[in-house]
Amino acid sequence: MKSVSGQIKKQTLEIIALLCEVKSGEEVCINGAVHSIRNMGEIAFVILRKRDGLLQCVYQAGKTNIALSMLHEGTTVEVKGVVQQEERASNGIEVRMREVKILSQPVNPMPIPIGKWKLNTSLETKLNLRPVSLRNIRERAIFKLQEGLARGFREFLFREGFTEIRTPKINSKGAEGGSNIFKLDYFDKKAELAQSPQFYKQMMVGVFDRVFETAPVFRAEKHNTTRHMNEYTSLDFEMGYIDGFEDIMEMEAGVLQYMMNLLKNEYARELKILNVTLPRVEHIPVVRFDEAKQKVSEKYKRNIRNPFDLEPEEEILISRYFKEEEDADFVFVTHYPTKKRPFYTMENPEDERFTLSFDLLFKGMEVTTGGQRVHDYQMLVDKIHRRGMDTEGMEHYLMAFEYGMPPHGGLGLGLERLTMKLIDEQNVRETTLFPRDLSRLEP
Amino acid sequence: MKSVSGQIKKQTLEIIALLCEVKSGEEVCINGAVHSIRNMGEIAFVILRKRDGLLQCVYQAGKTNIALSMLHEGTTVEVKGVVQQEERASNGIEVRMREVKILSQPVNPMPIPIGKWKLNTSLETKLNLRPVSLRNIRERAIFKLQEGLARGFREFLFREGFTEIRTPKINSKGAEGGSNIFKLDYFDKKAELAQSPQFYKQMMVGVFDRVFETAPVFRAEKHNTTRHMNEYTSLDFEMGYIDGFEDIMEMEAGVLQYMMNLLKNEYARELKILNVTLPRVEHIPVVRFDEAKQKVSEKYKRNIRNPFDLEPEEEILISRYFKEEEDADFVFVTHYPTKKRPFYTMENPEDERFTLSFDLLFKGMEVTTGGQRVHDYQMLVDKIHRRGMDTEGMEHYLMAFEYGMPPHGGLGLGLERLTMKLIDEQNVRETTLFPRDLSRLEP
Repeated sequence: MKSVSGQIKKQTLEIIALLCEVKSGEEVCINGAVHSIRNMGEIAFVILRKRDGLLQCVYQAGKTNIALSMLHEGTTVEVKGVVQQEERASNGIEVRMREVKILSQPVNPMPIPIGKWKLNTSLETKLNLRPVSLRNIRERAIFKLQEGLARGFREFLFREGFTEIRTPKINSKGAEGGSNIFKLDYFDKKAELAQSPQFYKQMMVGVFDRVFETAPVFRAEKHNTTRHMNEYTSLDFEMGYIDGFEDIMEMEAGVLQYMMNLLKNEYARELKILNVTLPRVEHIPVVRFDEAKQKVSEKYKRNIRNPFDLEPEEEILISRYFKEEEDADFVFVTHYPTKKRPFYTMENPEDERFTLSFDLLFKGMEVTTGGQRVHDYQMLVDKIHRRGMDTEGMEHYLMAFEYGMPPHGGLGLGLERLTMKLIDEQNVRETTLFPRDLSRLEP
Repeated sequence: MKSVSGQIKKQTLEIIALLCEVKSGEEVCINGAVHSIRNMGEIAFVILRKRDGLLQCVYQAGKTNIALSMLHEGTTVEVKGVVQQEERASNGIEVRMREVKILSQPVNPMPIPIGKWKLNTSLETKLNLRPVSLRNIRERAIFKLQEGLARGFREFLFREGFTEIRTPKINSKGAEGGSNIFKLDYFDKKAELAQSPQFYKQMMVGVFDRVFETAPVFRAEKHNTTRHMNEYTSLDFEMGYIDGFEDIMEMEAGVLQYMMNLLKNEYARELKILNVTLPRVEHIPVVRFDEAKQKVSEKYKRNIRNPFDLEPEEEILISRYFKEEEDADFVFVTHYPTKKRPFYTMENPEDERFTLSFDLLFKGMEVTTGGQRVHDYQMLVDKIHRRGMDTEGMEHYLMAFEYGMPPHGGLGLGLERLTMKLIDEQNVRETTLFPRDLSRLEP
């Protein structure tokens, strides 16, 4: 081998090629992992797991070159055989195995029946066995859909003139302060893990006008809930030259529409496997925070305990209300109380108790927080002081404003939560590849 | 506002729209930040910085509705004016300003002349003023190209059937051990920051066959060099069912070809701004480690001091050799010594002192390390023991192999180094948005 020229050609075929490019009766070469075996005596059905699905292969004693006892769940193989139409197979085809080459063997039988359609195993067990449990077709499909959501986010924003950025995760001071910050020793300095790219994405609005990032964020939340993780993926964007925070919501609606379309067009297999009905995103209702509280209080006979706070039960009821009234899966709740939003949030000039901000609820759960930011240097510094905060550690953040920043705003969208609600799961651990919580650091 | 429907329409136009959709003499609405001002007396040239470039605007006393003194570098504006053909302007057009609306004002004059074509400022100053220095057109273009590289990596691998994964950055034990690991307190546990997604991407080969990730990695390197950072972006992929490590190199050549094509087609503006000549990637020479040492020793009269190690000077000479002999910018060096590679690297069965692995050198610098991995459970456990290592903390990694793993391999490509060599910079800090090194945690 004297040079490499990017010739990526394999003789082995994927399922899509078997279906589109091969005629019944042709000999093909395929590979895969043995997913399950049904021994019928004379013949055996050997289901191979390939990256694009399951493929039924038929072992025939005397016609296949190896002993069936050589094949186990988890054996990886390369197979030469003949493609045959077979209506009863899930793809409508099967491969009659002639020559099987064993590529690798497992050393133990599967600890859980991953070949079953649905893993009837506790979440705890699934997570403990993650490298194996994810080989189940339904488990695997979850993360394929998740890929589609992140891909949709990026592709849409590229089209809208956004620039992708990569901001540091080790910082000297967190964006929003607070107690939920992981600390680490950075040589002789104290450092923190980024709980959000907030400061950095805002600074970059002064450079690129529109930016986004899809990256991990870290929150040292000390409670174990079904919707909080200590590390998760935040889909963030920030855009300049907005006329108001409504521009941010329109952009998010565009993102969601693009995402759902992408899933429909390119992830149909996974949607079917998980029996997902895509949510409606053509029109997303918008309701003011105080109005929303009033509406659910009236309809569901519930007292408003605190007019400046939204309880998780109220989020659920708001979503229920808009599902019942408008058949909506998503709802934007706007004008959150100033006290509940970070210092950089723009206040409503007409009523400074409320902000030009929003949350997006999806089937009863907050998946996005966003809004317009303060872009005026003096207003920002005043607000920091008014809150009794210190500008120490914020020098570079403030520098961006000192030298001019356009009106801007943005949002963060939690990828795992979005996936969870999309597939109607009850725990965000189900839609996190390797969850990190109070008690889980492995695998 | 009762609902949001993804209507993303702005009256303001970007430069591309001015060039393609507007006729000379038409009135348009645009926005941007004042990049520089040249006052000629009766008129003034006000250069606006927009996300897709610079736009020349003309201020005319009496014809523009505000005083010129209202405009400063860093002022953000919305402008109504008339488009005119103007050969001397960089885009061939200019906008005669009629109505200027001030969106925001800076509070201080720019600390460095960002409006100049090239910032003649020390690296240290540029980094200290990052939120502002990146507003320089050349500085900004670097990170637009970097976006293109990462985008190309993902787009190409999607086409090749890879799945994008997101692996945890907080772990209980690092993949390769060693001293360069950041430690942190994770509630009552000890945790580490991921120095690579190695273990996780290998585990996921058993699930998706082919996976990739583009994410930050963390290395507590205690030396300050021009090519090491303590946090950087690793473009990682891992693929199953390979025939040999050559498949990995072919895939990387495919990635590089796709990347360079994408830059050529969609980042021509930035390539021009930075005066970049794209490297040749049609054929990438391949040379064995020992052969490479021999060749440069002979040609450049240099003694081989250690046959099992490659010094940085040798990397430079190997690249020089292949540039001189074959006009190649990239070169794959294969069969690295076993002692220099981590335990999971597959040894060459024909000579176990060497491995089935490679580095990719780009203009004298290693930008990729990759190779085939051990996929057999027993071989892997034996190798761990032979090296005197402990399997503690590797239980989940080994679990993937216990239940069967196909032959596989992969690589990691350093995004900032690739960008650095592409634009012929001498320090990786130039191509890191917010670098983290021994002494730098800010901004």
